Amino acid sequence: MSEKKQTVAVIGLGSMGLGMAKSLHRSAFNVRGFDLNPEALQKLAEAGGTKAASPSEAASGADVIVVVVVNAAQTREALFGADGAAKGARAGAVVLSSATMSPDDARHLAADAEAHGLDYIDAPVSGGPAKAADGRLTIMASGTPQAFAKANAALDAMSEKLHRLGDEAGTGAAFKMVNQLLAGVHIAAACEAMSLAARLGLDLEKVYEVIVGAAGNSWMFENRVPHILAGDYQPLSAVNIFTKDLGIIADMGRKEQFPMPVAATALQQFIATAAAGMGRDDDTSIIRMIAGITGITLPRGE
Amino acid sequence: MSEKKQTVAVIGLGSMGLGMAKSLHRSAFNVRGFDLNPEALQKLAEAGGTKAASPSEAASGADVIVVVVVNAAQTREALFGADGAAKGARAGAVVLSSATMSPDDARHLAADAEAHGLDYIDAPVSGGPAKAADGRLTIMASGTPQAFAKANAALDAMSEKLHRLGDEAGTGAAFKMVNQLLAGVHIAAACEAMSLAARLGLDLEKVYEVIVGAAGNSWMFENRVPHILAGDYQPLSAVNIFTKDLGIIADMGRKEQFPMPVAATALQQFIATAAAGMGRDDDTSIIRMIAGITGITLPRGE
Repeated sequence: MSEKKQTVAVIGLGSMGLGMAKSLHRSAFNVRGFDLNPEALQKLAEAGGTKAASPSEAASGADVIVVVVVNAAQTREALFGADGAAKGARAGAVVLSSATMSPDDARHLAADAEAHGLDYIDAPVSGGPAKAADGRLTIMASGTPQAFAKANAALDAMSEKLHRLGDEAGTGAAFKMVNQLLAGVHIAAACEAMSLAARLGLDLEKVYEVIVGAAGNSWMFENRVPHILAGDYQPLSAVNIFTKDLGIIADMGRKEQFPMPVAATALQQFIATAAAGMGRDDDTSIIRMIAGITGITLPRGE
Repeated sequence: MSEKKQTVAVIGLGSMGLGMAKSLHRSAFNVRGFDLNPEALQKLAEAGGTKAASPSEAASGADVIVVVVVNAAQTREALFGADGAAKGARAGAVVLSSATMSPDDARHLAADAEAHGLDYIDAPVSGGPAKAADGRLTIMASGTPQAFAKANAALDAMSEKLHRLGDEAGTGAAFKMVNQLLAGVHIAAACEAMSLAARLGLDLEKVYEVIVGAAGNSWMFENRVPHILAGDYQPLSAVNIFTKDLGIIADMGRKEQFPMPVAATALQQFIATAAAGMGRDDDTSIIRMIAGITGITLPRGE
């Protein structure tokens, strides 16, 4: 890292982006941010960042431009829209693209960024809002050595595990999609297994204790089932995140003619839960959808 | 444990039963065993146990009768068949029933054992052959306090985690089925995710390293994917174990009218793999079935 403080633009100040902005600020970067939501912008200002009126303004003078919006389409708009970051950015700035997207989308965005004189790192993240705020994300990154040389300090400030996965955009996105396939299936399986346990009349707290120490455990089972036990479906991560991410998997499977039946079935469970009106609730709401069908009794919140 | 050495009959000397017999022998129990396979009986004798010519003979004089065969039907035959253990057992001996089965089957077997003057503990196990041989199994046990009083020493000799889950047979079986639902789905998901990674051209060793440290991890992913990376499909646990166990889940779902679509899809992947001739191979062979359809290249064994 050079002597001079780097300036980082963070475009997209949802729970992930705001956390990443805080981590960068704590590591003494100048942080400029943009979000369409004025409340998110206000939170950035309270955390010590500088508000910008557009992606273009946020990117003005920035060394690194972190884009952490919902999907590839929003990333494209944030970078190349009418007031997009590419308009304000200086030549040679480096884009860190952190939304979950298909490898093809990542490659197209990288090519377009390079055509605008920008470097690009395909840098999807994993770990959730709490780790984002603590600078402890897992980042699955790929891009040119030149891009990494410019972005390493910012990547380090945001991550506990920085995986450098190759020289080409698309590889980071591919790793993230493999992770999301597993994560989504494991959430759906956790809800299905706990619903069976409820139907069998088992002590659900005891089921959690036994499974966490047994071969049926998963990171998601261990992390998410406590929401079910507490009857708390406030969204830490929403159902709609996985209708989106398993939806990308489904699109990839059709496009590439690659069958993924387990992921396809898990997607249907997320879609059913969204259809029942719980798309914005916690992703463990799959079990409430199952309860609505089957009449099982779930633990209730306080 | 009383001063006098307890005698334990072990009926079923496959990789699990033989390991459990070894653990009991090491803990100074008198071990008598039976299996239809003469080679298995010979291994028992080499490990210090006493060969018996039938379940009835094995159970003769035993304080504890461990039944660790494939399923409920075999357990029934081992206990109540023409030369079954119930014929040779003394009144008041306690049966530890360790095959994976539905809660209903466990309850019926317990009632029949009690009608024969035997105590019964529903005691399915988890952990695999290596942990069985080391006395480090997880046992999910339920039964009367009287039955536990008689069997606790033997249970302790075989287990690292002994979960005592209730006073009635069926509860242990129910916990095991919940675990197997998750374990089976996680194996199918691991194979699906690694097949996608192969199709995307990723470095599969690197995928393993990244996922094990990320939110997509599961106990099964971590345990089984090394078989894929080594190209080694020698069965540590066979495909047919999960066509059986997810088959029990499917039977329970139909009988109880309880939908479990993710488990149902995983079952289809195990069935497809068995249909392709790999039922006796390692359960990660699902990925070889996928490779056979899609043409992806997998790591090859030495």
